[in-house]
Amino acid sequence: MNVVLIGSGNVATHIAKALNAVNVNIAQVWSYHYQNASLLANDVSATAIKELSEVDFDADVCLIAIKDDEIVNIVNQLKSFKGIIAHTSGSVNLAVLENSENFGVFYPLQTFSKNKQVDFSTIPLCLEANNEESLAVLKEIANKLSTNVLEVNSDKRKILHLAAVFACNFTNHLYALADDLLKANDLDFDIIRPLITETASKVQYALPLTVQTGPAIRHDEQTLKKHEELLNDHQELLEIYKILSNSIKKTR
Amino acid sequence: MNVVLIGSGNVATHIAKALNAVNVNIAQVWSYHYQNASLLANDVSATAIKELSEVDFDADVCLIAIKDDEIVNIVNQLKSFKGIIAHTSGSVNLAVLENSENFGVFYPLQTFSKNKQVDFSTIPLCLEANNEESLAVLKEIANKLSTNVLEVNSDKRKILHLAAVFACNFTNHLYALADDLLKANDLDFDIIRPLITETASKVQYALPLTVQTGPAIRHDEQTLKKHEELLNDHQELLEIYKILSNSIKKTR
Repeated sequence: MNVVLIGSGNVATHIAKALNAVNVNIAQVWSYHYQNASLLANDVSATAIKELSEVDFDADVCLIAIKDDEIVNIVNQLKSFKGIIAHTSGSVNLAVLENSENFGVFYPLQTFSKNKQVDFSTIPLCLEANNEESLAVLKEIANKLSTNVLEVNSDKRKILHLAAVFACNFTNHLYALADDLLKANDLDFDIIRPLITETASKVQYALPLTVQTGPAIRHDEQTLKKHEELLNDHQELLEIYKILSNSIKKTR
Repeated sequence: MNVVLIGSGNVATHIAKALNAVNVNIAQVWSYHYQNASLLANDVSATAIKELSEVDFDADVCLIAIKDDEIVNIVNQLKSFKGIIAHTSGSVNLAVLENSENFGVFYPLQTFSKNKQVDFSTIPLCLEANNEESLAVLKEIANKLSTNVLEVNSDKRKILHLAAVFACNFTNHLYALADDLLKANDLDFDIIRPLITETASKVQYALPLTVQTGPAIRHDEQTLKKHEELLNDHQELLEIYKILSNSIKKTR
């Protein structure tokens, strides 16, 4: 199995390294920035290419891991690709690839950052394809990487992506806001790290609604008021505090 | 060392079991609900008492782990207590105990839920006391439970508690909102559990600002717009989506 990889960002890098680790051959890497392609290619024993016209159109799979908006543009230049062309985006329709013969989606539902290793074996890999044969090939690759392979259509994948924004991107931003607050008071983020771990750990075996804690769920108006007073000089935090506390109070 | 415990809720229960596990003797347990006191006392080989007047005023420490608003009321009934009286709240001033001779705060910065075991050894235990002797005794107990014992004054403790609301309570609520969204689309919360684990894991060795991902930090207006459209029938989620995305966009 030969894979051509389009992209060299966080997602591309993590996928490339994971594929390489399970002996799926990355034949070529292309990126808008040749230097990045070259670095990544070097890491996974692939060849970096400068032009999309150099893509080996006989490779089995072409994985596109670039910015959502740029997928259409790239796909238009890969019409002669004979294998399966698949993008890795959570929010882009399968249909964007419909000018190809065999196409699909290979969406890893995870947050990737440089220099942070992830265990691919538990990552949900959400697959979709325009025909059974293509789906089977994507499944074959996905099964080598993860025990958590799912078939998900474009509509549901978009909801998963949106839910991930709440559970991951927004959550990380709340960590950042907490850090701002701590820093402004000469306190170290280290102090709340065990709390963050436990908060995530609690919902691994329970639904979040059943383990909600804090003043809002207790309707502890006194503490809520004190917190709002503490945030008087932090208008943005205050607004977020109010909207999320009110939302918690409405539950049950 | 003999400890009297006031309370039988989540915090009281977890502290009692942790103390019991390191052989600090819980002599008595009192609660507004005698039956709960009785159940907890039974678990930690203590005596449940029905009236506050039955408290052993010669015990070394009296730990108060009840609702914030009720602490004053309880403390007023324990004026004859000769040992150290300490509350476990994040947001209540040390001064609430000032009618006693020896008093302090013993605040575990963690989220506690019933039936979910926690590893006490990493929990930050934030201590404060009105004199060195009381602080030393609280430290002695705290050091048996955790390797993460801190001296924190009331003002800083309140900030820690507020930061914890952002990093834990609000975060858990975002998990719950994600679950609502998934449920409304026949998708299982299970699918985003690995993502939640990884999101918390990433900030254990990095600051959240440096590992922020998602459409808002990329200023990916197209995806943000698509997400807002998906939330058109969920006004509350839409409002939270907008305020948090805008807050993320302002960073850097």
